[in-house]
Amino acid sequence: MIPIVSIVGKSDSGKTTLIEKLVPELVRRGYQVATVKHDVHGFDVDREGKDSWRHKKAGAHTVVISSPFKVAVIRDVDHDAELVELRDRYIRDVAIILSEGFKRNNQPKIEVFRKEMHRELLCTKEDHLLAIASNQSFDIGVPCFDIDDAPGLVDLIEEQILRRKKNAGVFLRVNGAEVPLSSFVQNSIKGTVRGMVSSLKGCASPQSVEIQILPD
Amino acid sequence: MIPIVSIVGKSDSGKTTLIEKLVPELVRRGYQVATVKHDVHGFDVDREGKDSWRHKKAGAHTVVISSPFKVAVIRDVDHDAELVELRDRYIRDVAIILSEGFKRNNQPKIEVFRKEMHRELLCTKEDHLLAIASNQSFDIGVPCFDIDDAPGLVDLIEEQILRRKKNAGVFLRVNGAEVPLSSFVQNSIKGTVRGMVSSLKGCASPQSVEIQILPD
Repeated sequence: MIPIVSIVGKSDSGKTTLIEKLVPELVRRGYQVATVKHDVHGFDVDREGKDSWRHKKAGAHTVVISSPFKVAVIRDVDHDAELVELRDRYIRDVAIILSEGFKRNNQPKIEVFRKEMHRELLCTKEDHLLAIASNQSFDIGVPCFDIDDAPGLVDLIEEQILRRKKNAGVFLRVNGAEVPLSSFVQNSIKGTVRGMVSSLKGCASPQSVEIQILPD
Repeated sequence: MIPIVSIVGKSDSGKTTLIEKLVPELVRRGYQVATVKHDVHGFDVDREGKDSWRHKKAGAHTVVISSPFKVAVIRDVDHDAELVELRDRYIRDVAIILSEGFKRNNQPKIEVFRKEMHRELLCTKEDHLLAIASNQSFDIGVPCFDIDDAPGLVDLIEEQILRRKKNAGVFLRVNGAEVPLSSFVQNSIKGTVRGMVSSLKGCASPQSVEIQILPD
């Protein structure tokens, strides 16, 4: 599962600016990064009048814009999704996800704080606070970095988040929910499923396997 | 697998305009629709200066914008994807996909033709042409509809495409490629997989099951 770090802070504390520093530092070290932003006001599909905008306006549930370098998918949803749901449904091929905001979730967080903007922190240590990035130092039992110290913060992310990740490469969702699996069970499922599909035509050496079973 | 119909035609023949008529007609009949558009020039992520635009600009591989009603995912790709790949990777929860363009694929097609714009059709019957939508009639062994006759075209799509779909609800991808399965094999996999996971804690009555196994 792709690890998530939430960049949180009160309004105008500099969350986007910090993300603009963390992303290139992670990329420089060889990690592909996804970012997630919550937009309570909604957003537009492409620009008004463009073909994809007209498709959505006509009532399409999903609009895909494909180019040789980028793909965009815009789709209707019926609820405000949690970070974990966004990760499981929409994100792959990256090493780490940075969310802007999403304070109310159990993922590790970095709080951005600027003394000229606010008096108090948004989070406490109990909010799964991994670090503080600030131009003021805090002593709340959480590492405190300078607000511009992207290399230092990424060192911490590497140490605490990226190297901790260990999984035998098997993910299971049942009735829509992720089921945590020990590595013993993961390896057992891996062997069973690869064995099962290897008897199918053209599947003699199955490596990656995805099975999707819909409800009856 | 979600069926695809490509709306093709020479430039300025009225492809987007026809899609704007087909989508609401399909939605009115209870089908959720996805559309796919190829954009050779690329496109922008949100509006310049907005947070998600800044995330992408900073080098994020994937940017997700989440709201209570819509989710947008913009991600880097390393090649120009085929329709089937776009469907398999990015589209679900819809009954049908309409693509604008994508002439070079094996999906059924509707060609839009306006006599004031062009002299000859783009496709022949051999291009999997399902119908022509035109203000001129053609006799090439393919049904010809008036360019505004969305109800007639959707009748044909329902008859030829939507009712033909039959699947026992099991999809399998091995080493990245979809493996076609007979309903016997689908039901056999369904029983095996549900049986296997039903012994796991909290999974006594598995209905939908998704398993993802990564390469070693």
